Amino acid sequence: MASSLAKIGQSQTAAMLSSTINLSGPERNQITGHTRLPAIESNLSTNAVHPGPRSLHPSLRKPLSRMMSSLNRRRSSQVQQNGGIECVCSGYLQRGGPLPQSHMLAPSVGAGRQFLSQESGFEQLRACTAARLRIAKQKAWGSGRGVRWGGSIQASAAGSSPKEEESEDLGDWPWLQRSREVTHNGAGSQVVNLLRSGVSIHPTAVVHDDAVLAEGVRIGPLCTVGPGAVLGEGCVMHPGSQVAGNTVLGKRNTLHSGAIVGADLPGTTIIGDDNSFGYHSVVGVLCQDLKYKGDDCYLVVGNKNDVREHSSIHRSSRPDLKTILGDNNLIMGSCHVAHDCIIGNHNIIANGTLLAGHIVIQDHVHTGGATAVHQFCHLGSYAFLAGGAMVDRDVPTFTIVHGDRAEMRGLNFEGLRRAGFKTSKVDALRKTYEKLFLSNDPPGLEDRLAIVEANETLASDELARQLILFIKESTSSTSKRRGICKFRHWTDR
Amino acid sequence: MASSLAKIGQSQTAAMLSSTINLSGPERNQITGHTRLPAIESNLSTNAVHPGPRSLHPSLRKPLSRMMSSLNRRRSSQVQQNGGIECVCSGYLQRGGPLPQSHMLAPSVGAGRQFLSQESGFEQLRACTAARLRIAKQKAWGSGRGVRWGGSIQASAAGSSPKEEESEDLGDWPWLQRSREVTHNGAGSQVVNLLRSGVSIHPTAVVHDDAVLAEGVRIGPLCTVGPGAVLGEGCVMHPGSQVAGNTVLGKRNTLHSGAIVGADLPGTTIIGDDNSFGYHSVVGVLCQDLKYKGDDCYLVVGNKNDVREHSSIHRSSRPDLKTILGDNNLIMGSCHVAHDCIIGNHNIIANGTLLAGHIVIQDHVHTGGATAVHQFCHLGSYAFLAGGAMVDRDVPTFTIVHGDRAEMRGLNFEGLRRAGFKTSKVDALRKTYEKLFLSNDPPGLEDRLAIVEANETLASDELARQLILFIKESTSSTSKRRGICKFRHWTDR
Amino acid sequence: MASSLAKIGQSQTAAMLSSTINLSGPERNQITGHTRLPAIESNLSTNAVHPGPRSLHPSLRKPLSRMMSSLNRRRSSQVQQNGGIECVCSGYLQRGGPLPQSHMLAPSVGAGRQFLSQESGFEQLRACTAARLRIAKQKAWGSGRGVRWGGSIQASAAGSSPKEEESEDLGDWPWLQRSREVTHNGAGSQVVNLLRSGVSIHPTAVVHDDAVLAEGVRIGPLCTVGPGAVLGEGCVMHPGSQVAGNTVLGKRNTLHSGAIVGADLPGTTIIGDDNSFGYHSVVGVLCQDLKYKGDDCYLVVGNKNDVREHSSIHRSSRPDLKTILGDNNLIMGSCHVAHDCIIGNHNIIANGTLLAGHIVIQDHVHTGGATAVHQFCHLGSYAFLAGGAMVDRDVPTFTIVHGDRAEMRGLNFEGLRRAGFKTSKVDALRKTYEKLFLSNDPPGLEDRLAIVEANETLASDELARQLILFIKESTSSTSKRRGICKFRHWTDR
Repeated sequence: MASSLAKIGQSQTAAMLSSTINLSGPERNQITGHTRLPAIESNLSTNAVHPGPRSLHPSLRKPLSRMMSSLNRRRSSQVQQNGGIECVCSGYLQRGGPLPQSHMLAPSVGAGRQFLSQESGFEQLRACTAARLRIAKQKAWGSGRGVRWGGSIQASAAGSSPKEEESEDLGDWPWLQRSREVTHNGAGSQVVNLLRSGVSIHPTAVVHDDAVLAEGVRIGPLCTVGPGAVLGEGCVMHPGSQVAGNTVLGKRNTLHSGAIVGADLPGTTIIGDDNSFGYHSVVGVLCQDLKYKGDDCYLVVGNKNDVREHSSIHRSSRPDLKTILGDNNLIMGSCHVAHDCIIGNHNIIANGTLLAGHIVIQDHVHTGGATAVHQFCHLGSYAFLAGGAMVDRDVPTFTIVHGDRAEMRGLNFEGLRRAGFKTSKVDALRKTYEKLFLSNDPPGLEDRLAIVEANETLASDELARQLILFIKESTSSTSKRRGICKFRHWTDR
Repeated sequence: MASSLAKIGQSQTAAMLSSTINLSGPERNQITGHTRLPAIESNLSTNAVHPGPRSLHPSLRKPLSRMMSSLNRRRSSQVQQNGGIECVCSGYLQRGGPLPQSHMLAPSVGAGRQFLSQESGFEQLRACTAARLRIAKQKAWGSGRGVRWGGSIQASAAGSSPKEEESEDLGDWPWLQRSREVTHNGAGSQVVNLLRSGVSIHPTAVVHDDAVLAEGVRIGPLCTVGPGAVLGEGCVMHPGSQVAGNTVLGKRNTLHSGAIVGADLPGTTIIGDDNSFGYHSVVGVLCQDLKYKGDDCYLVVGNKNDVREHSSIHRSSRPDLKTILGDNNLIMGSCHVAHDCIIGNHNIIANGTLLAGHIVIQDHVHTGGATAVHQFCHLGSYAFLAGGAMVDRDVPTFTIVHGDRAEMRGLNFEGLRRAGFKTSKVDALRKTYEKLFLSNDPPGLEDRLAIVEANETLASDELARQLILFIKESTSSTSKRRGICKFRHWTDR
Repeated sequence: MASSLAKIGQSQTAAMLSSTINLSGPERNQITGHTRLPAIESNLSTNAVHPGPRSLHPSLRKPLSRMMSSLNRRRSSQVQQNGGIECVCSGYLQRGGPLPQSHMLAPSVGAGRQFLSQESGFEQLRACTAARLRIAKQKAWGSGRGVRWGGSIQASAAGSSPKEEESEDLGDWPWLQRSREVTHNGAGSQVVNLLRSGVSIHPTAVVHDDAVLAEGVRIGPLCTVGPGAVLGEGCVMHPGSQVAGNTVLGKRNTLHSGAIVGADLPGTTIIGDDNSFGYHSVVGVLCQDLKYKGDDCYLVVGNKNDVREHSSIHRSSRPDLKTILGDNNLIMGSCHVAHDCIIGNHNIIANGTLLAGHIVIQDHVHTGGATAVHQFCHLGSYAFLAGGAMVDRDVPTFTIVHGDRAEMRGLNFEGLRRAGFKTSKVDALRKTYEKLFLSNDPPGLEDRLAIVEANETLASDELARQLILFIKESTSSTSKRRGICKFRHWTDR
């Protein structure tokens, strides 16, 4: 087993390299050129070597299927000796496969470099899941599900009062079913086993046998979990939420009612830890790019993001790109993040913001409500988009833009103040902005940029340097960027 | 029992008073200052003394739990004598507790002052619900659910044709299950009892034992109803809709498929009568205010509102505030009503309208599609927002605003005409508007206001008076308001 | 039977005529005046004679009910002879009723004139469905459902491993239940029969007995299908999707999770083939027109449309109108198509586009994100709406509009190029546009139109002719149209 997977590991390495090469494209430049995106950096590198989806590549399925079925045959005999209580996946992990249990049951995926080290553990989870999916297709399926239903139903039909069981308090979770299931699932090996690892599944939830559920996962009524799903420790699915496709969630993610994470597409959705997905939000689904031809597509989400109701986040449009959401972002209601967007950290995206494809948002950006951004635009760190702004050019770092088509209206002093920059700190930045945008002498922006760069006090200031850097990148003829928003004097309005 | 609850009632009174004090803040001023918001007035006062949520305050839970468990022990013995058919909550109510049944089974909540008088009845409903929730946690739960499942399943497994039962026509409701459940739920005491009181629950719905369902409630397939839910007479839940958290619905509310009302948060969602919640709408959920720290939060909705698909209405961000929706409002699809908004009556909010926090909308306001309003703005009665308007100031009563940032473009004559104001009626209003906004003599708005107020014919006219009042409030240096939208001559465009 | 239906057919003809008359209103003019809308044309005519909904008109229900119940009595005796395995609807169709099976099981509705010829077949489907709905009301219902549940549950309770069954590969559909159901549904006549015709229904789905499911339909977990639903061959319902009301879907439609198609309203929703309805999309539901009084209302959707997540498409506001969506349209996320809109083919409607009532969109139109269109506006073929455009006038064919209120900014050369028009082809069009909109000589547009029409080379050019035609219609005093968007020189910005 270990050796077979090792082989796969090698084939992954090849894929990984090509994948890395792809990433030395424009996206890569944008990131490396920008010094303040650790999360994105790590996500990218993580992703560059992320072998997960490859394990589901058609060419790999048949051999994996064979390998795993023989494995299962061997193991089902063991099961007899163990008294019939264990299930292939989690049982396999619990008895400690090639990797320590900690790795297997709680893949803290998406969490930057840290995940990098778990690559192999993740790979085996995926392989195991993928292979059993194939098997489930051939054998008469549903026994697991049936048993789960049977369990709860026997209980009720018999009407016998279930046995008590001491367990940690699950707080205000009204759907707890544990003690009951444990008592009555005589035949339900998998259920019992899952419950032993502290998983609570409401009897009306539809959880595919091939789904991998870590310790403390709670699945509410009327949820569905597909065969490719991996839920990390303490994930909570509220009533009517769904996990579909090849989707890995880290620890303590919350799916609110109606939330849908992942889709049955080639490729993967990888979610980190402590994210919240709002009511009826749709995350990790098919892009709207008409050029998409069904290749592998990816979404990578970091940690501590809050995606609110009715928002949608699409997967990439090409296998060499990823849609990426970093850490600590708040995506408010009814927002749209299109394919191949790269969003950093600590951004606040207000209701109804529409982000077209290939947009890059750095950190601490704040968009107002009802804004829309043209594809391929970049929003620099601490940029502020006034409500209703229609942005069709890049928004330089630290600046405020407003209107349709959005024009620069000054520096985001409020945002900088809130971020803890003292007035003294932003003085050079202010001077730089004035020299660049509030003066026409010399007439050319390039010339004014040259003057500012020649000014040591300004060029040596970190914030000023960032602003200059962004503008030069955005306006350089080689960068294929869209240039920066128009600007005019405060007095123009 | 009565005495214990009386004690709670007293502790509520204290809370009530402090709450009332809080309400003498800006919101209060806005309302009292504005003479034409009866519904909001009543809701506010209602809410000021609304003790419901307090009954769930942690400090109250344990004592209530003890009190109620002893109560239940006593009553379960009675149940034996009654032949085992009754459930704690509704049975308790039906045998007439301290309050007449009419109060208990149909709390017409949110319906203005009327609800005020039912405070105690509502309080007991909440207490009962809250206490039983605690008990359900300790005892092996789910018998109710199990039995409900068992009932319907025994029926089918046995394949016996259920007994007929005469009942009033339920119209085109295709999910009717009543006769079947009644016939086959030998063990299902609660179900039988609920059905006796004319409740229809589809066997695939997940209804928590602690939910309180009044006469004629119909719950469709695949719905979920949480432990804190109280559904008034004739509420209908379409397939896949949900009621969560401490949520009280009055009579004849309709939840369309995917609608979610309430959330598991401290505080309450209170819905009046005859409201409709559209597909996938999200009402009474967590606010997006980053300052929210998990305190009690409230939403109060009046009567006869129509909230359409994909709209969201958030609860307040502070325990001393409430998000309030009055009566007869139409909130079209994909709208957002943020925390602490106060919306009056007969407003029409068109698709995609985004209302930020703390906005006050009076009556008969009409917003066009794709409009957005800045937080803390006020929209005066009969104001009209042209489609796409980005409003960042107050919109005076009777006026039309347009554009980004929205500017006054005249009076909403069409709206006034539709509201039945004759041309003669609006003559003084027109003159007032002309003197204020179509003239620069004298240059200062304050001076022009003074002139108009000095003009008896204008100052004595009701509509003109309202316009002047609104502008003075909005522009007064003491009111902390944002001032009114810019204005320019008809000819300016 | 056939004769009775023939009679109805005649009554339909009357309705058809009146309906046609109604259609000779403005909508009719717009269409006939416009030469390049085959799909719309056919849909309209189709619709004009579409008898489906009439079969549900109250006045028709009772007689139909009687007729069908007698029919059912006769046929249930036949069922005995057949060994008890068949269900009224699909069995009836399979044994070939008055119409060939191809017509009955796969009504390729909405597909233009083609559907016209199937009118009678569709009529019988509807009649059958409608009548059985009435019957189901009188008899104790639910046996079908019960049996389906019982079947799957017996299986699990017994824990017996289901018998294998050879079947075509259903690809990556993880919810396949066929073999299991077939094995264990001894009592489930309908289920067995449905399965024989190759239908797969997950045991947690709630499918009304009166729903008509064609060969190869797959219904996932936790879906609901109402009594008035007709699903054509190969339709797929993903977990948690719903079909409600009098709704006919053609072949191979996909409902993604949370999608809701149809509503319990008078009238019908008719969907063609190969459409995809996105997550939480809402299609064929009640309009928001306050003038709607509960009459029959319609939505007709053609083929190969892709409606993305959180979008809504409403039914008509009057029985003599239809909301119509043609073929090959892409409606991106969070769009709104209001009542009585008529949308042609190959249009791309970007995220958050709001289309008010009675809008006509021809073909190959492309709207940017966050656009909104005023009710009754027309968008000409190959028009392009820049992101954020607020359109309150007609947008002439081939033109680009931009801004709030949207103004013409030139011709959509990019769109024309993509559509394969060579530069030479668009030369006359360019000249025409220049003469009309980039010149003030003569000052009046009418005069400039006259000059262009007098110019043979321009007037003879197809594209130029179309542009002129559109403008004349839109600006003619008789057409009740809103006129065309403002225009200004390239240099104006």
